[in-house]
Amino acid sequence: MIIDSHAHVVVPAESYKFMAELVASRANPYLMPKLSDEAVRNAAKLILDIMDKVGTDIQFLSPRPYMQMHSVKPARVTALWTQHMNDLVHRTVQMFPKRFRPVAGLPQYRDESPANCLKELEIRVKEQGFIGCLLNPDPTEGDGTPPPGLGEEFWYPLYDKLCELDVPALVHSAGSCSPRESYTLKFINEESIAIVSLMNSKVFEKFPKLKLIVPHGGGAIPYHMGRFRAWTIRSGGEFFDDRLRRLHFDTTTYDKDALELLFKVVGADRVLFATENPGTGSAPDPKTGRAYDDLKPVIEEIAFLSEEDRRNVFECNCTRLYTRFRKDD
Amino acid sequence: MIIDSHAHVVVPAESYKFMAELVASRANPYLMPKLSDEAVRNAAKLILDIMDKVGTDIQFLSPRPYMQMHSVKPARVTALWTQHMNDLVHRTVQMFPKRFRPVAGLPQYRDESPANCLKELEIRVKEQGFIGCLLNPDPTEGDGTPPPGLGEEFWYPLYDKLCELDVPALVHSAGSCSPRESYTLKFINEESIAIVSLMNSKVFEKFPKLKLIVPHGGGAIPYHMGRFRAWTIRSGGEFFDDRLRRLHFDTTTYDKDALELLFKVVGADRVLFATENPGTGSAPDPKTGRAYDDLKPVIEEIAFLSEEDRRNVFECNCTRLYTRFRKDD
Amino acid sequence: MIIDSHAHVVVPAESYKFMAELVASRANPYLMPKLSDEAVRNAAKLILDIMDKVGTDIQFLSPRPYMQMHSVKPARVTALWTQHMNDLVHRTVQMFPKRFRPVAGLPQYRDESPANCLKELEIRVKEQGFIGCLLNPDPTEGDGTPPPGLGEEFWYPLYDKLCELDVPALVHSAGSCSPRESYTLKFINEESIAIVSLMNSKVFEKFPKLKLIVPHGGGAIPYHMGRFRAWTIRSGGEFFDDRLRRLHFDTTTYDKDALELLFKVVGADRVLFATENPGTGSAPDPKTGRAYDDLKPVIEEIAFLSEEDRRNVFECNCTRLYTRFRKDD
Amino acid sequence: MIIDSHAHVVVPAESYKFMAELVASRANPYLMPKLSDEAVRNAAKLILDIMDKVGTDIQFLSPRPYMQMHSVKPARVTALWTQHMNDLVHRTVQMFPKRFRPVAGLPQYRDESPANCLKELEIRVKEQGFIGCLLNPDPTEGDGTPPPGLGEEFWYPLYDKLCELDVPALVHSAGSCSPRESYTLKFINEESIAIVSLMNSKVFEKFPKLKLIVPHGGGAIPYHMGRFRAWTIRSGGEFFDDRLRRLHFDTTTYDKDALELLFKVVGADRVLFATENPGTGSAPDPKTGRAYDDLKPVIEEIAFLSEEDRRNVFECNCTRLYTRFRKDD
Amino acid sequence: MIIDSHAHVVVPAESYKFMAELVASRANPYLMPKLSDEAVRNAAKLILDIMDKVGTDIQFLSPRPYMQMHSVKPARVTALWTQHMNDLVHRTVQMFPKRFRPVAGLPQYRDESPANCLKELEIRVKEQGFIGCLLNPDPTEGDGTPPPGLGEEFWYPLYDKLCELDVPALVHSAGSCSPRESYTLKFINEESIAIVSLMNSKVFEKFPKLKLIVPHGGGAIPYHMGRFRAWTIRSGGEFFDDRLRRLHFDTTTYDKDALELLFKVVGADRVLFATENPGTGSAPDPKTGRAYDDLKPVIEEIAFLSEEDRRNVFECNCTRLYTRFRKDD
Amino acid sequence: MIIDSHAHVVVPAESYKFMAELVASRANPYLMPKLSDEAVRNAAKLILDIMDKVGTDIQFLSPRPYMQMHSVKPARVTALWTQHMNDLVHRTVQMFPKRFRPVAGLPQYRDESPANCLKELEIRVKEQGFIGCLLNPDPTEGDGTPPPGLGEEFWYPLYDKLCELDVPALVHSAGSCSPRESYTLKFINEESIAIVSLMNSKVFEKFPKLKLIVPHGGGAIPYHMGRFRAWTIRSGGEFFDDRLRRLHFDTTTYDKDALELLFKVVGADRVLFATENPGTGSAPDPKTGRAYDDLKPVIEEIAFLSEEDRRNVFECNCTRLYTRFRKDD
Repeated sequence: MIIDSHAHVVVPAESYKFMAELVASRANPYLMPKLSDEAVRNAAKLILDIMDKVGTDIQFLSPRPYMQMHSVKPARVTALWTQHMNDLVHRTVQMFPKRFRPVAGLPQYRDESPANCLKELEIRVKEQGFIGCLLNPDPTEGDGTPPPGLGEEFWYPLYDKLCELDVPALVHSAGSCSPRESYTLKFINEESIAIVSLMNSKVFEKFPKLKLIVPHGGGAIPYHMGRFRAWTIRSGGEFFDDRLRRLHFDTTTYDKDALELLFKVVGADRVLFATENPGTGSAPDPKTGRAYDDLKPVIEEIAFLSEEDRRNVFECNCTRLYTRFRKDD
Repeated sequence: MIIDSHAHVVVPAESYKFMAELVASRANPYLMPKLSDEAVRNAAKLILDIMDKVGTDIQFLSPRPYMQMHSVKPARVTALWTQHMNDLVHRTVQMFPKRFRPVAGLPQYRDESPANCLKELEIRVKEQGFIGCLLNPDPTEGDGTPPPGLGEEFWYPLYDKLCELDVPALVHSAGSCSPRESYTLKFINEESIAIVSLMNSKVFEKFPKLKLIVPHGGGAIPYHMGRFRAWTIRSGGEFFDDRLRRLHFDTTTYDKDALELLFKVVGADRVLFATENPGTGSAPDPKTGRAYDDLKPVIEEIAFLSEEDRRNVFECNCTRLYTRFRKDD
Repeated sequence: MIIDSHAHVVVPAESYKFMAELVASRANPYLMPKLSDEAVRNAAKLILDIMDKVGTDIQFLSPRPYMQMHSVKPARVTALWTQHMNDLVHRTVQMFPKRFRPVAGLPQYRDESPANCLKELEIRVKEQGFIGCLLNPDPTEGDGTPPPGLGEEFWYPLYDKLCELDVPALVHSAGSCSPRESYTLKFINEESIAIVSLMNSKVFEKFPKLKLIVPHGGGAIPYHMGRFRAWTIRSGGEFFDDRLRRLHFDTTTYDKDALELLFKVVGADRVLFATENPGTGSAPDPKTGRAYDDLKPVIEEIAFLSEEDRRNVFECNCTRLYTRFRKDD
Repeated sequence: MIIDSHAHVVVPAESYKFMAELVASRANPYLMPKLSDEAVRNAAKLILDIMDKVGTDIQFLSPRPYMQMHSVKPARVTALWTQHMNDLVHRTVQMFPKRFRPVAGLPQYRDESPANCLKELEIRVKEQGFIGCLLNPDPTEGDGTPPPGLGEEFWYPLYDKLCELDVPALVHSAGSCSPRESYTLKFINEESIAIVSLMNSKVFEKFPKLKLIVPHGGGAIPYHMGRFRAWTIRSGGEFFDDRLRRLHFDTTTYDKDALELLFKVVGADRVLFATENPGTGSAPDPKTGRAYDDLKPVIEEIAFLSEEDRRNVFECNCTRLYTRFRKDD
Repeated sequence: MIIDSHAHVVVPAESYKFMAELVASRANPYLMPKLSDEAVRNAAKLILDIMDKVGTDIQFLSPRPYMQMHSVKPARVTALWTQHMNDLVHRTVQMFPKRFRPVAGLPQYRDESPANCLKELEIRVKEQGFIGCLLNPDPTEGDGTPPPGLGEEFWYPLYDKLCELDVPALVHSAGSCSPRESYTLKFINEESIAIVSLMNSKVFEKFPKLKLIVPHGGGAIPYHMGRFRAWTIRSGGEFFDDRLRRLHFDTTTYDKDALELLFKVVGADRVLFATENPGTGSAPDPKTGRAYDDLKPVIEEIAFLSEEDRRNVFECNCTRLYTRFRKDD
Repeated sequence: MIIDSHAHVVVPAESYKFMAELVASRANPYLMPKLSDEAVRNAAKLILDIMDKVGTDIQFLSPRPYMQMHSVKPARVTALWTQHMNDLVHRTVQMFPKRFRPVAGLPQYRDESPANCLKELEIRVKEQGFIGCLLNPDPTEGDGTPPPGLGEEFWYPLYDKLCELDVPALVHSAGSCSPRESYTLKFINEESIAIVSLMNSKVFEKFPKLKLIVPHGGGAIPYHMGRFRAWTIRSGGEFFDDRLRRLHFDTTTYDKDALELLFKVVGADRVLFATENPGTGSAPDPKTGRAYDDLKPVIEEIAFLSEEDRRNVFECNCTRLYTRFRKDD
């Protein structure tokens, strides 16, 4: 079975209108939109067509990260929008329960404690069967002083709840207000910051059951192992490669050379198949004619992966991690 | 002829999507959308149906003010969005040249000088036949220190260009970031601030040909004449009622009592017919069954207006002011 | 009996000196001034002469709002000044108990919780017989981010105390630091903001006994009913006119047309006679020769008011609301 | 002849009222007060009585420094107030030309360049015979980042004008917004900062004719000579005592021991007689029965001063410095 | 016995390197340096040579104040540096127990409560025999809004602990970020501010056992007694000279005239011998050939001091105050 | 010949002391240190020993980047420190002209224009033979809003001068004030931001002769080519791989797998040999026993590089780029 562990909803026109109105009115006043079943179905169909074409059995579906608006003032904007998007995810999964699993967005807001997200997370998981969530390490989106790194106590209330609910979090930043750092690049940089902060912290000692996935091949870190290995040698303590095995990664980096590096550095037992398709990588590679995010054949071509490695990457790493996943849901 | 001097485009779904993407990506990166003729036509049709129903011959069409996003950082967001909306206005007018006239939005940005808007205004007026523009007196949208009042030199570069091009400006604020002041109320408050600032300034001495229209019945000012009359009596100088005659007003206040007050205070020769239909007033009045913004019958019922008054209000005040208006365009 | 429910003390020269010293020294150090009985009496005489001339029996006397200095740093400035002004009110009322009733100013400070005002309010009411207070919805006076709207929990501690003491609050802003918005205009705008915030809130469900008076004819709202009626129609819930009946208003708007609009919109049973005389309206109307704030004859001329309406406006609305008022105090 | 080179006007009641109104209204709107001749005369009489009592022939009169309100926003407040106070100084001197000489306040504003003060200074000196001015080294009054030290180029435009007009400036700060530093202490601290900044600068090389007087005995510096002598020894360059002779000082420090230290450290040829009477020192010394600011007998008691020293201190240092002073004005 | 109650460590090269790295890396990451015994001994030897030369028996040794970096972000920088410096003090005293006594620096940080320093203070005093500490009244070092004055409740947690441990605090500011106020001048100004804040407070009523020493001759205050005496006369309450006797002072002002003034004003029983040698005063006085900070002969020359006075100054005032001092440690 | 194009000085103890003093005093006051020849020589010897051991013929020596203090206020701190460090570089090169070449640090300061650096750069290049410089893309060091991206006009004055002098710049950030992003990680993130900003700009069209080197293997970009390739496919314009060839890179990434990826992605003709030895990578790799930054054998092991490739990497790419390099200097 091929599970694409990291994918996002296609946003219906009515939702774009709602988002535009929310931003324009700053949610004062606002009217919640009512998406028709048809609108939800049409959006899902776009994804299903792609899945069928590239051979994906199941996608884990979450709100589109760069559109989470975690920094738009006031907090009510992101609260309403997150609710709307999670509703969309939920309805999509209910319509196509064999093809999708729901992953929640969190109503994080600027530098406020993630404690305000626990209720939304709990309801989605317990009442609607969501199996994981997104975690934005910088909900200020680059507008002002960011919250502490993921290794700090600031995040413990969320880690606590993640462990209690036994759901993994996908570390994924949202937008970027800095004119010099596009959101797509901020994803990468935030992942690097997240990893280093976690690796230098006691988070996994405090929360041994915490499950965090760093997408996009782990930001820049697997490409800069020498720098961090030298640091752990010099400062003592556990070797950097060993620390890194507390994390999980995914394959959304769209290049065979890069994926090979990733597998070599973190091990095939730590990497989840993922494409974000349709998304950033959805453009045809002139060399292959296939889209950059059609990663299944790319991974199948990597010679040094064993059959078991591939099974792990395509399915088992994911199902081991997402314990709330049920095949026959 | 019935000219509705103040109305706004209906935004197509593709534009909402663009706006949502602009905000989410902070215009980095961005792709300009291409609206189909059909999308433009469908949006226009919604307006035309209403116009036909309520008996409006011509609408002056501008971007929807509360969606101008003048305070969203960085400046490129509002620059691109204004361009897109003005393009939509232009294409709509080109499709239905007998029913619409174009009024431009300006790419104002936070507390920056309006000098950055002159080029966009000039191009729209000279090359595309726009006959007026919107003027937002607080493009910070309540997020930070607002620019100086409309009576201050800050605005002179724009006044200069308005006089040079001989186009009126409609004083209309945009959104409101303050959680305690909705955009709809900010419209009113900003109009009051604008009037008082202008009335205590030398703007009309410096720019005797400047034409400014204060919509929504002139904010709170016609209802608070006593306060300002007493002030001019006490401080000397021209009487407040006389100063006020340098401005123009419109009828977008949706209540017969209020409109009667307006006509009494500022005179029927200073008021332009306007409805913003469809818009804020588009809800059925339970007393009449008509929409609140169906103002033609309301004005026709005001007993103390003469036939000439009505003609002025419905047409001639407007055509005198908008000198670039041509009947047979 | 004619009760002018909204009037302010005349400030003696010694108090101006104190205020000047407070601001210059930022209350560090300071010496409390001791007003002579003569100074208090002379100030009161100025008011009494006017009252006799215009036929007012009793005035409710409070500190002059625009001089409350709620935003001057540090908090000790406004604390000392408020105390001094409330003392002046108290002494004035003690000297002329048949002609005045005391209404307290509150030592509000910038965006700090109104909880710091409860003690001053309680002492003035319980120990000195004050019958109401002022409530400034924006004690930042436009210098920085204002506190939440009057509909928000931020204000609950004060509402609680108002209900407990059974005293009404007069919603009246103070100064304005924004160079583009004079304090006299800010009064109006703040009243509009206050009304809309309250009308969209659950304040009167939580505090059914809360009594709030919006002076100056209710800001801009009675002139913009169409806008807010349409909104309640569209969003559902109680009709705007019905919501508005939870509030009270007063007649300090100085124009017959405006007063007629006010009575029509909110009803004669919701309006209190008030003049702020001497104050903003104290200048001769060239048309009548009377001062703008000599409102008794103006109201008596309004044809559609019944005798009972007039009695309500001039006395009974006020005495019903101010339950701590005693005729024979 | 006894010249008291540093004294301030007594503020009439009407001026306090104006100041209070200016602050309350932030000068929007405002009405300039018209002081009666009687008010001006009465205020002057209070000073003349003191002068006669303590034996002062002539006072140099300037606005009261701590009331200059250089930091109150917006700039128009201090502009109007400075104008009003300089007018008061001017009228007082015109009434009693044998007993007073005028020294101007400057409309400095927060961290803005002193260039905005040049016009006011020039008019007062050239058209009204002012002979000097105050110079506030921190017009932010402790509210925000202060401007650069007096040794920096920021102040050159003012130094240029002072040299051109050949008038001395008295370095005197105004109020203090910092709750922990009263204005009276800030005077002292600012003088220390001013001296050190000037001593480490090239100001007197660039402006060899610049005449600056540091009042209040030169802040803390004469008491801390060891610290600064050691510094110049260690870092090289001119010895600190020699540098200090580019400045002038005055006697407003109210204690014989302190004055003796001052004379020893800076030399009797650098010190001007001054009392600020009536002012900070106007309270009876229980030991002598005289007011602390009755400094003439104190100075006469200092044994080590020669007759010539005393003549210099009481008259000649001052007349040498204030070249625009004429005995027979 | 000659006790120099106020002196600072000489910083070894390894510590400078550590400080430079801390600032450059903002303590992320960092490695604590390990000073060799030799480095500690060499630094101490530099001081001992001076002590022997000038005849000092014992020095009270604390971290060098201007290098405390209390404002460098983040807090971890100053926390680590303070720990390192206190360790250096401790090791120096352990090496030369007859010649030094340890005084602790506190890890104060910007405007945060001094409560975070109590643990460090307690450990140093109870476990390592420290006998006092430094107290920086402005740990923002002029970068932003300073904490409340020493007379305010903000400081009570620290005063509480000082009383509980029965250790004096030396009021000594650190660096200065303001380009116009060098750290050396800020010492003086902060001491003046500290004294005035304490003298106008109830601190010594609340903490009658609190022992505070104001070094550098008490800032500017002894030179400006007239100003503050007049104030207490005018405002009532205890006379300023009497209030001042709750404090202690030291002799680090490097000038005979200044020291004479100090002894006269505050009394020889309130002044502790202190030199900060080597430090600011370590430069040769061209008049005497001795260093400015070689103060023993200077004090011995002051004629009006009795033998007992001198004994008090050189030893007994200090030993009375520092109750944890033991001669034979 | 083996040229290590990217290495930094070893900082002598005296310089650390100077840096510590500069930070503690905020350069007010300051005394420039005078390094002895011995101090300079000893520091250089540490490097030469390493060079000899690992087989490097020549190092290009610049100030240590993370210690540049570009954000420490005020600007004079970094100005003095940069001057001191460039002097150290210059003296080191003069002592060992066959083994080192000088690369300058620039006195960049927070968000100020790089125009203030041109004079220092010009002097170092023209008068002292420096052959290149560092360029910090974020001199705010994460403390506040960063300057525009390297693709923006903000940087044109520097690019202009670089072209005029024909010297390459090494894009290297300095410290990081953000507690969640260590300087070592910020290097990587800033390089990614720099590349993307440049690739989306017209910088190389405006400055075709501009030579920029992105060290540390180009940040994260070579590992995320898929993401950026897809973007250029989708948005049109030149393919990302082609754009990237306008830049140069170096080998300071300390891992064979990473270096192989780098060579594959950008080509061996675009990569300069570089080690920063001694530096971040100076710790023994437990697998090889060699230090991580001993990269010569690592590169020699990469099978797919030809002899010519290696010559290019070790020498010719560098000498082609650094046109001011002379072998026999």
